[in-house]
Amino acid sequence: MVPGPTPLPPEVLEAAASPILYARTPDFVEIFEDMLQRLGRVFQTESDVLVFASSGSGAMASAVENLAAPGERVLVASCGHFGNRWVSMCTDLGVEAVHVESEWGHPIDPATLADALDAEPDIEVVFVTQSETSTGAVSDLPALREAAGDRILVADAVSGLGVVDLPMDAWGIDVVCSGSQKGLMTPPGLGYAAVSERAMARRAKRGARAFYFDWERTQKGQRTSRSAFTPPVTLVAQQRAALERLETEGLAAVFERHRVLGRMCREGAKAAGLELLGPENSEANVVTAFRVPDGVDGKAIPKLMKDRFGISMAGGQGKLSGQIGRLGHCGYYGYSDIVTALGALELVLLELERPIELGAAVGAAQQVMAAAQRG
Amino acid sequence: MVPGPTPLPPEVLEAAASPILYARTPDFVEIFEDMLQRLGRVFQTESDVLVFASSGSGAMASAVENLAAPGERVLVASCGHFGNRWVSMCTDLGVEAVHVESEWGHPIDPATLADALDAEPDIEVVFVTQSETSTGAVSDLPALREAAGDRILVADAVSGLGVVDLPMDAWGIDVVCSGSQKGLMTPPGLGYAAVSERAMARRAKRGARAFYFDWERTQKGQRTSRSAFTPPVTLVAQQRAALERLETEGLAAVFERHRVLGRMCREGAKAAGLELLGPENSEANVVTAFRVPDGVDGKAIPKLMKDRFGISMAGGQGKLSGQIGRLGHCGYYGYSDIVTALGALELVLLELERPIELGAAVGAAQQVMAAAQRG
Repeated sequence: MVPGPTPLPPEVLEAAASPILYARTPDFVEIFEDMLQRLGRVFQTESDVLVFASSGSGAMASAVENLAAPGERVLVASCGHFGNRWVSMCTDLGVEAVHVESEWGHPIDPATLADALDAEPDIEVVFVTQSETSTGAVSDLPALREAAGDRILVADAVSGLGVVDLPMDAWGIDVVCSGSQKGLMTPPGLGYAAVSERAMARRAKRGARAFYFDWERTQKGQRTSRSAFTPPVTLVAQQRAALERLETEGLAAVFERHRVLGRMCREGAKAAGLELLGPENSEANVVTAFRVPDGVDGKAIPKLMKDRFGISMAGGQGKLSGQIGRLGHCGYYGYSDIVTALGALELVLLELERPIELGAAVGAAQQVMAAAQRG
Repeated sequence: MVPGPTPLPPEVLEAAASPILYARTPDFVEIFEDMLQRLGRVFQTESDVLVFASSGSGAMASAVENLAAPGERVLVASCGHFGNRWVSMCTDLGVEAVHVESEWGHPIDPATLADALDAEPDIEVVFVTQSETSTGAVSDLPALREAAGDRILVADAVSGLGVVDLPMDAWGIDVVCSGSQKGLMTPPGLGYAAVSERAMARRAKRGARAFYFDWERTQKGQRTSRSAFTPPVTLVAQQRAALERLETEGLAAVFERHRVLGRMCREGAKAAGLELLGPENSEANVVTAFRVPDGVDGKAIPKLMKDRFGISMAGGQGKLSGQIGRLGHCGYYGYSDIVTALGALELVLLELERPIELGAAVGAAQQVMAAAQRG
């Protein structure tokens, strides 16, 4: 139950065993184009979803390389470890990032973003995070869109896509970056950048200092059914199968399932006497983060969860290292996974001599499930 | 029988179905480190083999990004479509590539390289190709190493690694780039750059305009068992399994098998009345390219091979489009694959009303095999 790579549904595992197809054959092109169309529906966009053989970070780096030139100033608004990665990317690529950071555990504050942009009226591109995997915070993209005015807005949705609603076109987000290995229920190795016409026009006008992640080359390849580079053919077949599953369940039902799982996890953690990191948010359903209780070694909880019950969970990253625990529930997860994890967590806390009433966390989660079933 | 992605051995298919491991768990780290050690033995180097979630082109682009700054002049010596990709990479990344091109079908001419460098004494980095997939030509890397003097020499070995001998350290090649999907018998999605200390020192002294493909970030991640980005965990497990198979067969035996397969294919093609592209070369055992006979439509042979016999083969690329046919035999191929392909090719040529003695091509290939078995 780490926040990615996440477990695979059976049909996605099976797709891995399909024979290797040459990328130029009609058989593969059909699978690839079906995947592209399904991705468009999950990103909720009419724009092209550009596909890279890369991690999600590669897709994010593509946005910096295609939208910002060395020496240029852009703005990064972040609220955690992964949001701050935008800053490292810009710095390493020679782009100057003005950085405003909201408190870790909280979403990105739209007012802070608006103030920063007032002070920097020449900035044309803004980078933000939808779901901050290191804290579980989910930011309010429509509010950030408003705060960004008419600037190009790029959102990291690596962990949130297919988990929390993100209608890209309806919300007017210019670029949405994601990856195959979290909500999209596929092994890691595919990075996605959905790019609006406006963002693509900026790229066209200014050129890009990019080769592998050049949006124009990738778009041209996809539009002519001739990928720019050898695509990871098995991962494409797996992603197609996962998206078929996702669409069979239905996008709205998938978001609702994650709402129930997130609420189960939060109520369970509280009933186990744990303090949640940051304010509660009914849309923060990707990762649940709780503070490690005083007097408990920060690494002890994940270690015992793994040693005693074989359950992988994550600790804190960056400045929250050792201070929080994180349970991921994005992708191929259901009711029983949460109950299993909470039951194990209770026993681990008991072993760590925390005051705990066995069954309380599981019971709280069951209450959430029962209420959801009643509708 | 296209030159990649190539078929997978059974144990590599099976590894795809292993459970998804979190990249930070000891279980995954053990698999990853085993893969890195095995890669080092296949690259025949003591240097780090840097692993990227990318195609082979991504690993090649990493060499340009880490070794050449925008505005700088480098030299590309090529002999086909993929070698020329070095030039596009440089151009797109703002690096000026002085380009010398040998005749397609022939290997890169070391004398041409030496002359070009005499005329450009300030150039510090040279990019070449070991196995040129678009023509089947395999260049003489020790001769190119000598021609390049003391300059940094970067070799594209995407299709040749694990097929044709390339002792990186013994030959003094500074950077060798490859990918998972050809000789290494794994699905596409992993790119490799083996980087000598000398090349890494150049990177360190000058900095890189790179983020995702930054060699230092990747090296640091690998040396501390904390990958810089989410690694494609299933592809890593598959690559490890494929390398175990390769090492069980033995590197020398793998090269010898490909020598026999290459010779079978060349002798078979000649016995079918086909003219090989370029001069014969006992080390050009990755891809066999033959000229499409006069009066035959260039696309007809691959189309009939697929339609009548379900065998994928490749046509020409770039300026050889429509003029040649290519049979790949790099990776998980054996005697029977060549016999099957040649038998089908004979029937296709008969259908195309070429003068053909059925069985002649297969017989010629069998003669090669029989001679190899006698030792």
